[in-house]
Amino acid sequence: MTDTVVNSASKEVVIGFNRPFVIIGERINPTGRKVLAEEMAKGDYSRVKADAIAQVEAGAQMLDVNAGIPLADEPAILAEVIKLVQSVTDVPLSIDSSIVEALERGLGVYQGKALVNSVTGEEERLEAVLPLVKKYSAAVVAISNDETGISEDPDERFAVAKKIVERAADHGIPSSDIVVDPLVMPIGAINQAGVQVFHILRRLREELKVNSTCGASNVSFGLPNRNGLNAAFVAIAIGAGMTSAITNPLHSEIMQSVMGANVMMGVDPECRRWIGKFREPVAEAEGGRGRRAGGRRRRAG
Amino acid sequence: MTDTVVNSASKEVVIGFNRPFVIIGERINPTGRKVLAEEMAKGDYSRVKADAIAQVEAGAQMLDVNAGIPLADEPAILAEVIKLVQSVTDVPLSIDSSIVEALERGLGVYQGKALVNSVTGEEERLEAVLPLVKKYSAAVVAISNDETGISEDPDERFAVAKKIVERAADHGIPSSDIVVDPLVMPIGAINQAGVQVFHILRRLREELKVNSTCGASNVSFGLPNRNGLNAAFVAIAIGAGMTSAITNPLHSEIMQSVMGANVMMGVDPECRRWIGKFREPVAEAEGGRGRRAGGRRRRAG
Repeated sequence: MTDTVVNSASKEVVIGFNRPFVIIGERINPTGRKVLAEEMAKGDYSRVKADAIAQVEAGAQMLDVNAGIPLADEPAILAEVIKLVQSVTDVPLSIDSSIVEALERGLGVYQGKALVNSVTGEEERLEAVLPLVKKYSAAVVAISNDETGISEDPDERFAVAKKIVERAADHGIPSSDIVVDPLVMPIGAINQAGVQVFHILRRLREELKVNSTCGASNVSFGLPNRNGLNAAFVAIAIGAGMTSAITNPLHSEIMQSVMGANVMMGVDPECRRWIGKFREPVAEAEGGRGRRAGGRRRRAG
Repeated sequence: MTDTVVNSASKEVVIGFNRPFVIIGERINPTGRKVLAEEMAKGDYSRVKADAIAQVEAGAQMLDVNAGIPLADEPAILAEVIKLVQSVTDVPLSIDSSIVEALERGLGVYQGKALVNSVTGEEERLEAVLPLVKKYSAAVVAISNDETGISEDPDERFAVAKKIVERAADHGIPSSDIVVDPLVMPIGAINQAGVQVFHILRRLREELKVNSTCGASNVSFGLPNRNGLNAAFVAIAIGAGMTSAITNPLHSEIMQSVMGANVMMGVDPECRRWIGKFREPVAEAEGGRGRRAGGRRRRAG
């Protein structure tokens, strides 16, 4: 039982074993989104705002916020976006940057306990990011690669994760504040990518006893019917112990798979969430008839 | 690595670790299908024939055949249906009855090595069914309940499976000819039903080293959007080690989940099956335009 607690000014979210899976919305990220990048670079955050609201409405319990735009002032934009997103939603945020100064600016303006995304097993990153995580009492995503790159041996990737957890402890950061990303490779290129990740996830849960996350849609890169593959991936990964994912909550197949996996893992008591989402819309059907039959509808309500 | 080999007169199917998941079509079963039961009782097998063909076309690698109709001559009907199904499809069959005489009649007419469905851990069933399995060199589904019923303790269900495997060995039946059904309970009634089954599946694979199957749609009994739940269930179960299921191949969500799980478990080399099924239908799209533009279509073909 390991709980990673993050919060905003008004809302707490727990990523944990034997708890409902946590969806971290991935959309606020200009990488590969040209229009969004251009808008953000010139200070137009209307799309960021809409994306934040839409993702929370679709069921994201947290949002990832990334402002990685080439040649732009990333630290300043990231801080602006965090303030904006916190003004329109109450979910905790994952502050996502490869630039340490941007992480620090983001943490400086963030209201609550954030998830820092991310630190790797590279020496320089460890010594730059972990002190920040400690200073702001944040949680952190630990990506299981190091100076040698991403190993295809899942046990080596596990070893990198273990090293990060140990180093974090040296900085006074408990393992419950580490969320490991085992790194999901495109399965169209590496046929064993799924098996590798499921193996790491099981070891993270049973041996290292830490929470986990991943960019869930990477796995289907380059293949047709990506949502179908992503849905199968998240279900199996949740079965193997994964406790959160950075993904797109607007994709209904993935969300349905996550909700179904919550039922299957026994973390949707009495299937209430599932039933609430999918029960036959009796009232609506009656309403439909009511449109033809006058006053009936009002009485049904 | 355990392989359970079954065959028809012309086709072999292997249920096994690190192999594509095997779908056993469940439709040829009059239980709960009133019209089919009435037709079968009076010797009209047209629907059986259509169901057999449709399930194989939808991707079933095996078919389950059940003729359990109250007050009817089940042994005779089961034998007839087996002969009919083997005349219109070439997939191996699962011969499904709770009546030992019906199993024997079915095995007597079956061409090839069948899967007998099923034996339980009940003393009387063990000593009635296992000699038949041995006599006909068949494989057998072992259901993990006994005289005491179905335990909610997954380790007790595992113990029953182990007892059946050991008893089968006494009869000269190798464990590779046993396919254990861990018994999937409705998760709307038993919130931990999924977790129980995943636990048993892992032990079956890692400790007993036997193949497994289940009635995959039981899990969603009584809940809305059953296909969505079944899809999540089969993906997680495959991740936990399940190697076959008795289910409805006409439900596309389940089939997509199985195909996706095959990709994720690394048993769809180069994702060829997935790509074959889901790649963008370029030729078809061209054909569609061709309808308006005359000769184009033929040239595109």
